[in-house]
Amino acid sequence: MSGFRHVVMFKWAEGTTTGQQDEVAAQLRELPGAIPEIREYSIGTNAGVNPGAYDFVVVADFDDKEAYLVYRDAPVHRAVIDQYIAPLTAERVSIQYEL
Amino acid sequence: MSGFRHVVMFKWAEGTTTGQQDEVAAQLRELPGAIPEIREYSIGTNAGVNPGAYDFVVVADFDDKEAYLVYRDAPVHRAVIDQYIAPLTAERVSIQYEL
Repeated sequence: MSGFRHVVMFKWAEGTTTGQQDEVAAQLRELPGAIPEIREYSIGTNAGVNPGAYDFVVVADFDDKEAYLVYRDAPVHRAVIDQYIAPLTAERVSIQYEL
Repeated sequence: MSGFRHVVMFKWAEGTTTGQQDEVAAQLRELPGAIPEIREYSIGTNAGVNPGAYDFVVVADFDDKEAYLVYRDAPVHRAVIDQYIAPLTAERVSIQYEL
């Protein structure tokens, strides 16, 4: 397989509700329909297996780096980040790599 | 798709060489051949697109949580962690989630 993958994990701030987390997931699930550059899009919530694990993750695959940059900078994506994700975020880590 | 995914990111300690990083990747690439519970195994090195990104990532898919736990605790895996990964690790973050 070739392509370009973006992985980002979040820890939510104390007091973040299940409803707020569900809203983040619902908003993100709209993005593949809005941004055709997204090839595969997987979001997940910590299964609670290991102590210290992050709370939420997005694994997004693209054909190439340029397609990822379209996603990263898409206004519809930035709006979800600004309105739903950033206010809840305590920690954010990411990596991008060639598949 | 159903299954169970493990995602782990590392930042390497200052002074870690390219050769050491290549050895980590080479050792990990042996694991799918040694641990049949691994369904998909993707490893990657930071593409350098975004400042602050992590250095290295593993995305590993399994049929279920139990299969992931076999991988997590497999002596051949723990040996790679202890001998090759832990000595280089400055930061490690992970999440496990249901696909």
